[in-house]
Amino acid sequence: MVSVPIQVTVWSEDLGERDAVRLVYPDGFHQTIAAGLRAELGSGASVRTATLPEPEHGLTSEVLSATDVLTWWSHSANDGVADDVAERVRQCVLDGMGLVVLHSAHLSKPFLRLMGTRCTLRWRNDEREVVWTVAPAHPIAAGVPSHFVIPRQEMYGEFFDIPPPDELVFLSSFSGGEVFRSGCCWTRGKGRVFYFGPGHETYPVYRQPEVRRILANAVRWAHVPVPSPIDTSSSPRLPRGWFEATGNL
Amino acid sequence: MVSVPIQVTVWSEDLGERDAVRLVYPDGFHQTIAAGLRAELGSGASVRTATLPEPEHGLTSEVLSATDVLTWWSHSANDGVADDVAERVRQCVLDGMGLVVLHSAHLSKPFLRLMGTRCTLRWRNDEREVVWTVAPAHPIAAGVPSHFVIPRQEMYGEFFDIPPPDELVFLSSFSGGEVFRSGCCWTRGKGRVFYFGPGHETYPVYRQPEVRRILANAVRWAHVPVPSPIDTSSSPRLPRGWFEATGNL
Amino acid sequence: MVSVPIQVTVWSEDLGERDAVRLVYPDGFHQTIAAGLRAELGSGASVRTATLPEPEHGLTSEVLSATDVLTWWSHSANDGVADDVAERVRQCVLDGMGLVVLHSAHLSKPFLRLMGTRCTLRWRNDEREVVWTVAPAHPIAAGVPSHFVIPRQEMYGEFFDIPPPDELVFLSSFSGGEVFRSGCCWTRGKGRVFYFGPGHETYPVYRQPEVRRILANAVRWAHVPVPSPIDTSSSPRLPRGWFEATGNL
Amino acid sequence: MVSVPIQVTVWSEDLGERDAVRLVYPDGFHQTIAAGLRAELGSGASVRTATLPEPEHGLTSEVLSATDVLTWWSHSANDGVADDVAERVRQCVLDGMGLVVLHSAHLSKPFLRLMGTRCTLRWRNDEREVVWTVAPAHPIAAGVPSHFVIPRQEMYGEFFDIPPPDELVFLSSFSGGEVFRSGCCWTRGKGRVFYFGPGHETYPVYRQPEVRRILANAVRWAHVPVPSPIDTSSSPRLPRGWFEATGNL
Repeated sequence: MVSVPIQVTVWSEDLGERDAVRLVYPDGFHQTIAAGLRAELGSGASVRTATLPEPEHGLTSEVLSATDVLTWWSHSANDGVADDVAERVRQCVLDGMGLVVLHSAHLSKPFLRLMGTRCTLRWRNDEREVVWTVAPAHPIAAGVPSHFVIPRQEMYGEFFDIPPPDELVFLSSFSGGEVFRSGCCWTRGKGRVFYFGPGHETYPVYRQPEVRRILANAVRWAHVPVPSPIDTSSSPRLPRGWFEATGNL
Repeated sequence: MVSVPIQVTVWSEDLGERDAVRLVYPDGFHQTIAAGLRAELGSGASVRTATLPEPEHGLTSEVLSATDVLTWWSHSANDGVADDVAERVRQCVLDGMGLVVLHSAHLSKPFLRLMGTRCTLRWRNDEREVVWTVAPAHPIAAGVPSHFVIPRQEMYGEFFDIPPPDELVFLSSFSGGEVFRSGCCWTRGKGRVFYFGPGHETYPVYRQPEVRRILANAVRWAHVPVPSPIDTSSSPRLPRGWFEATGNL
Repeated sequence: MVSVPIQVTVWSEDLGERDAVRLVYPDGFHQTIAAGLRAELGSGASVRTATLPEPEHGLTSEVLSATDVLTWWSHSANDGVADDVAERVRQCVLDGMGLVVLHSAHLSKPFLRLMGTRCTLRWRNDEREVVWTVAPAHPIAAGVPSHFVIPRQEMYGEFFDIPPPDELVFLSSFSGGEVFRSGCCWTRGKGRVFYFGPGHETYPVYRQPEVRRILANAVRWAHVPVPSPIDTSSSPRLPRGWFEATGNL
Repeated sequence: MVSVPIQVTVWSEDLGERDAVRLVYPDGFHQTIAAGLRAELGSGASVRTATLPEPEHGLTSEVLSATDVLTWWSHSANDGVADDVAERVRQCVLDGMGLVVLHSAHLSKPFLRLMGTRCTLRWRNDEREVVWTVAPAHPIAAGVPSHFVIPRQEMYGEFFDIPPPDELVFLSSFSGGEVFRSGCCWTRGKGRVFYFGPGHETYPVYRQPEVRRILANAVRWAHVPVPSPIDTSSSPRLPRGWFEATGNL
């Protein structure tokens, strides 16, 4: 069985980040995240990047139709994403594209529209986060220790206003006493969505080996290699006996 | 403990339905559904109705803020509901209002926005439906037999493009061979949502005792009598040590 | 609608606890828990107690068949419960009795047999626990704040080897950095099971108002007032057309 | 990345089946199922068989410790499996072995012990079954049509007394009007369990291409290639600060 590389598009807003950010991510998040995925996935993935300032934010129909999994980092510019691009991303997920939503993208338009809830949370800067694996058999936890520490990180805490996850993979605690469902899986339509909490812009979270491993696992998990023949673009009216006529009898 | 009646608003489009419908539901769906709830819930509920032709579709902020549970039947007019009213309903659900979504309202705007998926399905007219209880401990199944037959009904079949339900209470089969997840529960924000499949407009489904029982149970289940103090209207930035300061230590 | 009191049996091992325990729970856990339930539920419940030293541990067929909800606190004597009594409890849950499992009873025989997993966890004495509500619409969270602090408590931490809960209501963090799924719901057969983590024997956890409220809510939630007519005691062989013959057509 | 073959053990009771069975499965179920897996998985799996009459039913500690995924078909001999072998299988699942449970093995000892419920259902011989995909993004549905027909099959119908599945992949309808949750996923400990309903002994169900595809997908899904370092064999008492000491800071 010849394995075809997963087509990954790594998106970030890339707003010519503030100096404090450039110290940590000199080429922008997308480059750091893409480099991590390339290192982890090797020939198993073909990774490109796209950013907000590009035409259609770099997420044209052509790009998305050639994307198996989209990773999305955004923060300041959540509201700056055009509605039609956000809706295009949502439609692609419903048709089978994987979506990996990172950190502050909990308030990004594609995620909000897919979840249907407010996705608000509590937050505070500069905490120690401990990430705990609560689903040891889950593919996204493969090779991830029972727990690991992110020395400095933004606290994201409950109540996180998301739909109850289909699968809860990671929980986090913070030195201030808060907890957070930091690794959550959902299926929406024919697509898979993973949210991962860690990743503040002023700390080198995406360079940490455990986080790189998790993002690579998430890309593999979110990839649906054999598309289902089910078409959900409309509610078809069927004649009586239609399924006998589809060749299965 | 004095029990306060549940405030229920029963909504339907009430479009001066076609003759075939008026034979079955001479006063409109909302009246038949409301009468069933009044008979089942007695003094446990205070039931009013609202319809599409009323100003703001009868769903003003005043009405919704005095509504514990909203039931929603719609079909032809799914697209005729104003966007701002649909969004108002969604916000109320996220703030704790129960929502019971009936039959063709799987394509209603409030349900679509809460689910995030397409909510499409397969359909055909005039089938025998058998409804099976698959969650016998669930409050919505209380007093409902292991299975019951709806002699004539519209077939709604899989694939039903919904998020995996938090709880699956009923499954249906149809004489044509299809299956359907016909009783599904979700939590969204601080509100509870129940979808129930049966209820076509040309058959007396809502007069059937089992269905009336299910709708009454659903209203009770969807009611959140003690609102949670959690406020999800924004993502609050918190100072270090905020939770020690909230009086719990 | 006349409300019938919930029949509650509060069980604990009551081993003539050590002095440190008697300082906190002079009459044993069962008495403190029962008193809390009586205060919270009033005429809504009829509460009795049972303990390990009684014949059949106080859990005869007669007692269990008159019990709507059983609460279970055990620790040192988890292995001292007779297998046939543990199995009797499991069978009653499968037939519709509610079960509220407290603290160290995660290793009790009835819970282990209902879960099918090892139910192991990490632990350490003497930590501050913060309990967070992550399901604000859930009946067990009614009247419970967004979070509350238990000043001194035994740490129970992940990985907690339980089946993924059907509903996750509370999460806890500990001053040592651990997290725990501390409020978990499952349905098993026709019965409902709730596990609640807090409750060490040397701290007055069960006197804390938030905990008393949670236990009372849990009893109400676990109570299935209208038993389902489904009989799961065997796999019946059915003749063709049996459901047409059951009076629903 | 060199892919290591999945080690699969295919188990069936192989009781020198009745003549009617031998006409369909002349070499026993295990051989037919094993042949299907070999054809579907090719070099991706190494498939051996084991049967009830062998010493320790062919499921010694040596065999199980070299097994990534165990498939289990049983019927008449569910009670004939030794308790210690059943418990050994359960322990291996909790430690990460995949388990694919087929048809009448819903009453097998390993499955019953992992589920904790009675796993009873309704049944009748000789029906047409239609299998519907309700989780099109799930790996077990990869390459499976929206629905397919099994012309003759034993009816297995609701209420199926299982824990609510973590993921529901297939639903079935039967010509008699029943429905069944026929493809169900659970995680237990560090292992994954899949139950698949179709497969009666007097019909060539396991020769049908869609069924062969599903079983191969199930083996891949149930395989956890990178074992989690979490040890659930006991509840360890931890010193304060233990996680700082584990090298993550």
